[in-house]
Amino acid sequence: MTPVRSTLPDDARRVACEALQDTLVDLIGLSLIGKQAHWNIVGPRFRSIHLQLDEVVSASRTFADTVAERSAALGVPPDGRPETISKAFTLPAPKEGWVRDSDAVRVMADSLQDAVGRLRERIAATEKADPVTQDLLIGITAELEKQRWMFDAENVPGEG
Amino acid sequence: MTPVRSTLPDDARRVACEALQDTLVDLIGLSLIGKQAHWNIVGPRFRSIHLQLDEVVSASRTFADTVAERSAALGVPPDGRPETISKAFTLPAPKEGWVRDSDAVRVMADSLQDAVGRLRERIAATEKADPVTQDLLIGITAELEKQRWMFDAENVPGEG
Amino acid sequence: MTPVRSTLPDDARRVACEALQDTLVDLIGLSLIGKQAHWNIVGPRFRSIHLQLDEVVSASRTFADTVAERSAALGVPPDGRPETISKAFTLPAPKEGWVRDSDAVRVMADSLQDAVGRLRERIAATEKADPVTQDLLIGITAELEKQRWMFDAENVPGEG
Amino acid sequence: MTPVRSTLPDDARRVACEALQDTLVDLIGLSLIGKQAHWNIVGPRFRSIHLQLDEVVSASRTFADTVAERSAALGVPPDGRPETISKAFTLPAPKEGWVRDSDAVRVMADSLQDAVGRLRERIAATEKADPVTQDLLIGITAELEKQRWMFDAENVPGEG
Amino acid sequence: MTPVRSTLPDDARRVACEALQDTLVDLIGLSLIGKQAHWNIVGPRFRSIHLQLDEVVSASRTFADTVAERSAALGVPPDGRPETISKAFTLPAPKEGWVRDSDAVRVMADSLQDAVGRLRERIAATEKADPVTQDLLIGITAELEKQRWMFDAENVPGEG
Amino acid sequence: MTPVRSTLPDDARRVACEALQDTLVDLIGLSLIGKQAHWNIVGPRFRSIHLQLDEVVSASRTFADTVAERSAALGVPPDGRPETISKAFTLPAPKEGWVRDSDAVRVMADSLQDAVGRLRERIAATEKADPVTQDLLIGITAELEKQRWMFDAENVPGEG
Amino acid sequence: MTPVRSTLPDDARRVACEALQDTLVDLIGLSLIGKQAHWNIVGPRFRSIHLQLDEVVSASRTFADTVAERSAALGVPPDGRPETISKAFTLPAPKEGWVRDSDAVRVMADSLQDAVGRLRERIAATEKADPVTQDLLIGITAELEKQRWMFDAENVPGEG
Amino acid sequence: MTPVRSTLPDDARRVACEALQDTLVDLIGLSLIGKQAHWNIVGPRFRSIHLQLDEVVSASRTFADTVAERSAALGVPPDGRPETISKAFTLPAPKEGWVRDSDAVRVMADSLQDAVGRLRERIAATEKADPVTQDLLIGITAELEKQRWMFDAENVPGEG
Amino acid sequence: MTPVRSTLPDDARRVACEALQDTLVDLIGLSLIGKQAHWNIVGPRFRSIHLQLDEVVSASRTFADTVAERSAALGVPPDGRPETISKAFTLPAPKEGWVRDSDAVRVMADSLQDAVGRLRERIAATEKADPVTQDLLIGITAELEKQRWMFDAENVPGEG
Amino acid sequence: MTPVRSTLPDDARRVACEALQDTLVDLIGLSLIGKQAHWNIVGPRFRSIHLQLDEVVSASRTFADTVAERSAALGVPPDGRPETISKAFTLPAPKEGWVRDSDAVRVMADSLQDAVGRLRERIAATEKADPVTQDLLIGITAELEKQRWMFDAENVPGEG
Amino acid sequence: MTPVRSTLPDDARRVACEALQDTLVDLIGLSLIGKQAHWNIVGPRFRSIHLQLDEVVSASRTFADTVAERSAALGVPPDGRPETISKAFTLPAPKEGWVRDSDAVRVMADSLQDAVGRLRERIAATEKADPVTQDLLIGITAELEKQRWMFDAENVPGEG
Amino acid sequence: MTPVRSTLPDDARRVACEALQDTLVDLIGLSLIGKQAHWNIVGPRFRSIHLQLDEVVSASRTFADTVAERSAALGVPPDGRPETISKAFTLPAPKEGWVRDSDAVRVMADSLQDAVGRLRERIAATEKADPVTQDLLIGITAELEKQRWMFDAENVPGEG
Repeated sequence: MTPVRSTLPDDARRVACEALQDTLVDLIGLSLIGKQAHWNIVGPRFRSIHLQLDEVVSASRTFADTVAERSAALGVPPDGRPETISKAFTLPAPKEGWVRDSDAVRVMADSLQDAVGRLRERIAATEKADPVTQDLLIGITAELEKQRWMFDAENVPGEG
Repeated sequence: MTPVRSTLPDDARRVACEALQDTLVDLIGLSLIGKQAHWNIVGPRFRSIHLQLDEVVSASRTFADTVAERSAALGVPPDGRPETISKAFTLPAPKEGWVRDSDAVRVMADSLQDAVGRLRERIAATEKADPVTQDLLIGITAELEKQRWMFDAENVPGEG
Repeated sequence: MTPVRSTLPDDARRVACEALQDTLVDLIGLSLIGKQAHWNIVGPRFRSIHLQLDEVVSASRTFADTVAERSAALGVPPDGRPETISKAFTLPAPKEGWVRDSDAVRVMADSLQDAVGRLRERIAATEKADPVTQDLLIGITAELEKQRWMFDAENVPGEG
Repeated sequence: MTPVRSTLPDDARRVACEALQDTLVDLIGLSLIGKQAHWNIVGPRFRSIHLQLDEVVSASRTFADTVAERSAALGVPPDGRPETISKAFTLPAPKEGWVRDSDAVRVMADSLQDAVGRLRERIAATEKADPVTQDLLIGITAELEKQRWMFDAENVPGEG
Repeated sequence: MTPVRSTLPDDARRVACEALQDTLVDLIGLSLIGKQAHWNIVGPRFRSIHLQLDEVVSASRTFADTVAERSAALGVPPDGRPETISKAFTLPAPKEGWVRDSDAVRVMADSLQDAVGRLRERIAATEKADPVTQDLLIGITAELEKQRWMFDAENVPGEG
Repeated sequence: MTPVRSTLPDDARRVACEALQDTLVDLIGLSLIGKQAHWNIVGPRFRSIHLQLDEVVSASRTFADTVAERSAALGVPPDGRPETISKAFTLPAPKEGWVRDSDAVRVMADSLQDAVGRLRERIAATEKADPVTQDLLIGITAELEKQRWMFDAENVPGEG
Repeated sequence: MTPVRSTLPDDARRVACEALQDTLVDLIGLSLIGKQAHWNIVGPRFRSIHLQLDEVVSASRTFADTVAERSAALGVPPDGRPETISKAFTLPAPKEGWVRDSDAVRVMADSLQDAVGRLRERIAATEKADPVTQDLLIGITAELEKQRWMFDAENVPGEG
Repeated sequence: MTPVRSTLPDDARRVACEALQDTLVDLIGLSLIGKQAHWNIVGPRFRSIHLQLDEVVSASRTFADTVAERSAALGVPPDGRPETISKAFTLPAPKEGWVRDSDAVRVMADSLQDAVGRLRERIAATEKADPVTQDLLIGITAELEKQRWMFDAENVPGEG
Repeated sequence: MTPVRSTLPDDARRVACEALQDTLVDLIGLSLIGKQAHWNIVGPRFRSIHLQLDEVVSASRTFADTVAERSAALGVPPDGRPETISKAFTLPAPKEGWVRDSDAVRVMADSLQDAVGRLRERIAATEKADPVTQDLLIGITAELEKQRWMFDAENVPGEG
Repeated sequence: MTPVRSTLPDDARRVACEALQDTLVDLIGLSLIGKQAHWNIVGPRFRSIHLQLDEVVSASRTFADTVAERSAALGVPPDGRPETISKAFTLPAPKEGWVRDSDAVRVMADSLQDAVGRLRERIAATEKADPVTQDLLIGITAELEKQRWMFDAENVPGEG
Repeated sequence: MTPVRSTLPDDARRVACEALQDTLVDLIGLSLIGKQAHWNIVGPRFRSIHLQLDEVVSASRTFADTVAERSAALGVPPDGRPETISKAFTLPAPKEGWVRDSDAVRVMADSLQDAVGRLRERIAATEKADPVTQDLLIGITAELEKQRWMFDAENVPGEG
Repeated sequence: MTPVRSTLPDDARRVACEALQDTLVDLIGLSLIGKQAHWNIVGPRFRSIHLQLDEVVSASRTFADTVAERSAALGVPPDGRPETISKAFTLPAPKEGWVRDSDAVRVMADSLQDAVGRLRERIAATEKADPVTQDLLIGITAELEKQRWMFDAENVPGEG
């Protein structure tokens, strides 16, 4: 059953939809580990980071929806099932149990830094294949880089 | 590190937090498979079920947050990481790839039916251990039973 | 045709759905007589009671919807047709024609008092059968008791 | 007790208020049977019709309030009590129990068609008696004819 | 200078615009005496009537704007200057100084009753001249009759 | 296929639906030329008229929808396709290319003036055929006459 | 009947309430002549000034309400009846009939200028008598001076 | 520890902060007794006064927050602890138990009257010390005088 | 005077209303000490805790209102007067004067922990007496336990 | 008259503005045929597709406005007059009269598919000429491809 | 060209407008350095201070607008051009480059402290010249003192 | 201190961040001169241009924030201090003092035209260095070109 027509040649579609599927995995993964840290964080910066983590979750969920629907729109069914995410998600993530606030900041900064690095490769890969997909990945990168900056800035040790 | 005090005796806490952790897995799982079906559904009822599935996702996400924060509030860190969900989630779920609308309805009805069955056991189990947790599970059950009814009703074949 | 599956054993479902059907009749009835009084009230307290009656109507309509959908969710079709309400509704109600403000206050206080009394019996009856239904009836009772208090308080004669 | 003055001669008032009382019965009846169908509908079009029925209920309730208050404003107390509706309401209505989606569409189309037919007679009857009442009935007819069209359009069988 | 073209023959325009100018005077007058009563009312029903009077003011202001702009749209400049209102406004009105709540209710009921009587004459007068203007006057009458009913209902003496 | 039942006799329906179809053409046409002027206007009054034109467009679109749905509700399919509008639309309209602000004001005032003239004929034509349709046309006329007044008023040359 | 107690000595109350009554007259007058100009303005700046005039009306109405309620709060009933405004209002105002846009700007600038001059005298007069009333008059002056500036700025002739 | 710098000389700060602390006590007290009356009021005016009392509570809470934060901003920690309020609050207050509506009106009018009297002394006292604090107290007085007027007006006995 | 009827037997009402009165004291007390800490907190975490404390205040005020109105609805007048709170409130509270941020966190965590302990006893006590009251107390406990968790989590010392 | 300066060289401007004008025609055409189908659709999926079509209309109107204003911003007046659209619009469209739901889905899917194909050519054509225009076309393509996917998915036949 | 009339004598106007111009410089400067710190802040309190700084920016921008428009309203054109601010702004400000969170807190506390000191001189200077301007400066001072307090409180070192 | 990691190679980062810093200067400068003109404009088009200028200010402020945060996200601290803007801002700007409306239109059109020209160079420069930054600059250009068009269109002289 191939119910949804493509508007791209086969090769271009393959490149674009691989980039989209890989991005989908990273974004769903980020939304899950962002919530994990949101729930388990402890330390004097609890409230501030607890709220900041929910902004990562919210952005990741919105982008995941856009990315998956774009893949469907190109005629390739996206895959966001639990076992798929579990197998394919490889970004840094918090450990089980309580997470100290400074550890949460560090792990989120690293996870976002890696996610951005992977997105930049996909931006290059999709430039010829599909500028519409590329434009979407550019927008996601802009937001994740902004989130990454904020965790990096937060990661600078205090005075004294 | 046991940073968060309990307001329950140890046994009661164990019972309540196991119920909460199991419910967390079901709810995160439901939010992931609900989105999976939302993206991959095809057929003449596409738009109607596409929108209905997002209501399952939205309810599941909100309840997952409440359930996880309640576990933390009782002093037990919840676990919602991708690998945990993948291992522990056992409710019926859509297959990979495009999903026919009638299949989506059937699988969601079955998945919600099973989720409710498991919740009813936890309602019984937590009655003595923690009426506050029980009350939360009762509220979730009411909503999931309502969602289940709507998929069941939708599952009745048309005239002729 | 039994299109909607139950999540309760047959006995429990019968108890729960009888409680829900009886509550549905009381609530639809309250919404109709509340409007009747809202339209026909006269006297120096017209505006104040006219507005208060609409809050009874609004709460009754919202609860009626929840109660009926819960019965459907348990697999039993609710019945809110005009002839059903007319036959089964037995709470005190305003007479035909204009209603003096003090009479409207008295009749609504009495009607809500009786409705609460009947709800309390159903709360007891559903405790074992279905804690989810019981929790819903508890919530309705809380609101109707609050409304009843306000009519009772309003019913105290003025100074001198 | 005749607390509210009329702004119409007695004959005109009688004509206008009979038209209003009859319309009130039809509208309250429509709101009750619309909800009945909203709760009991089953079939592949469940969600779509379930939502559409609530728009009939919402419009009927709003118009019923306007119609009843206009009667009061003309000095004649309206009657919307359960027994009055039960006796006077004669439009087609769904049977007890589950309602197949196609049956719900048919019965609502017929009920609205009949309601519009009766309203058009009242529009003619009130033209001389009270143009203000007539204008209100015209507005109700416009909305109910629109609702009727949508159920009629929905009632056309699908392809094949 | 006759800057705005008419879409009516001269006779019809004269009839319509006289009806509009007279209505403008009544509505601005009602908005001023409504506020006068709103500020000066005293008695146990202060708050209830104080709020109700602001609804008369609000409706009167909105209708006055519509009526004046309709006259301009027909090519006749409306006149709402203080001296014009003072000379032409003849509806019952509160006296200078504090106003007892029951007096406020009576005078507003009478003023609205008279306003409606005059509007009904203008509805008849404009039927042939301009159905658009007539329709506007019908809408104003519906609202003022509703307001009049509420003051009449409020004017019925309390029990005992 | 005649899927939607009429609530009017055949003759009345023909009269009403011709009036509606002609009005639909005028309204869609007005929405297109209003946007054309909105985009191409130049001159010192650019911003003020640019915004005013969008109010014409917005009103025209809303009325066009109501008019077309009313025709469907009477059982006659409306026709708003590009070729239909192009053939049937005859109101004054801006030329291709930039439009000076004073020219935009003049052409819109003339176009609205003509539209109102045609609507007044249809109001007369539908009085017996269908008072519900007539009432709708009266409401549209009121708004377009108001818009026309504002362009006429704006068209008066400045001082000096 | 002196139902409302004063919180000021008699002399202070007299000074404060005279200032308030005079301000009430100016503000109601401004709201009436602002509307008069809003309806009757013609010329190329129609839309811009038409909207600006409604901001004068809106501010005047809000301040009039505050000023009148402050007088009541000090125990002196305010007087805003049509005949009072007509007699006491002396600020510059538009003539009967259509008003050219440049004339509307000039007359509103002059009227606001005079209103501010009178308010500044009352600010001085109430300084000792009642700083609460003075503070209210200061706030009104700030807003009316701002409105005056905008009409003055608008009154500067255009280039060449 | 004197963590917050002053922007006032020591004497001025002492005067301003004593006025603020005394006002804080009155406002928190008013919010507590306003709620006490809101909950315990009975009588035919129940609903109207019940709602009015909540406006006193809402205003008192908002002002209390502003007053306390102003004291902190001047470098003096405010004190709003239960024992402080209990000791220092001396305004008239309702007795324990049910409160008749007319008694609630009387006691609130008296309590607000006394509160205003005390505020006027503080307005005088802070004029030289800190015009910013004085301006805040003037604003509170304006609102409490308005609330007092409404209870006074409500306190006038009804007709006959 | 016993104006409000009970819907409970006397013994049950006594148990329920004692639980409600004790809870009312705790909640009003929490709202007062929450504000006290909100105003007086100092330290590097000022803004974060300052905002968090207002959430405790807001929740406490809302629950206090519900609890007091429930007692009234059961026929027992609640008591929230300053002297009552001062005498009966025994939860840990901040000292007079500036409060270091870490002290504010500790005292709020302890105060909420104790409040939850006392609520759990009342949940047990009201189970038989009044399930409606019990359900309300369960809801309050859920929220206060959540607030307590967040202060506990915040109380964990930072890294190094 | 060339009132608006370009920020592009002449060749680039010509390329960009041709792409914009062609896109404008497609978008206005889509908004007209989307409404045509919205009004004339019949069949069991009436409500679902009726609503979906309005989303196409809404998106098309918003994009048409942006596209036309971008052309003006580049100094070339856009052309959206009825005769221009009628001549230049060539996408698949519904026939006159009632449209079966499955036909509406097919024709919209085809029309959007063709529109996307044409947009992709313009994206390529404007890459060098004007990246700002290209970026706008990319955004439109993303949305229309998403809409196309949904109609394609909806076009898959139901089970059995 | 002196287009805007004064409502003050020349001397008073000079005093008031100098105070306004100096305040304008301080406020625009604060808005610029607030943003500078908002962008460049690093350290564990990043998020909390980052958000707090935007409240300074938002308040400064709003007040700057009010202050500049008041100067214009008094007939003196305000000057907020880049070179003016650069020359006249002398409050403490963050250095170029990244700013440690504790440094950002200190410099903002100092800058606001100085700004308040200068405002208090202008409050004194404008008392006789123009109480309306003085009242505006009092309002600005209240807000900046509040902001200053919060940075001061935040500046207290943490525990141990 | 280099607290924020880059996700770009050093050369690319230098190119991107120079483009961002130059754009930041232009945008802050535009927001300051837009306000300067907003405050000082005089002439018959005062209100229209006064409002339009605030849209330039609002867009400039929002873009400045985005641009500065993007630079920070790339690891380079942005510089928006008063002295930096004053030195580096070179776009056309209004003179000191009152500004005639036609001059304000001309200078804003020229300033935006120059800003766009500079942005187009930066779009070219960043294409290879950082497509994410380029995309942001493209979005800013689209908006500023739109604003420029409107001032250009407004700059066309009126008729006669």
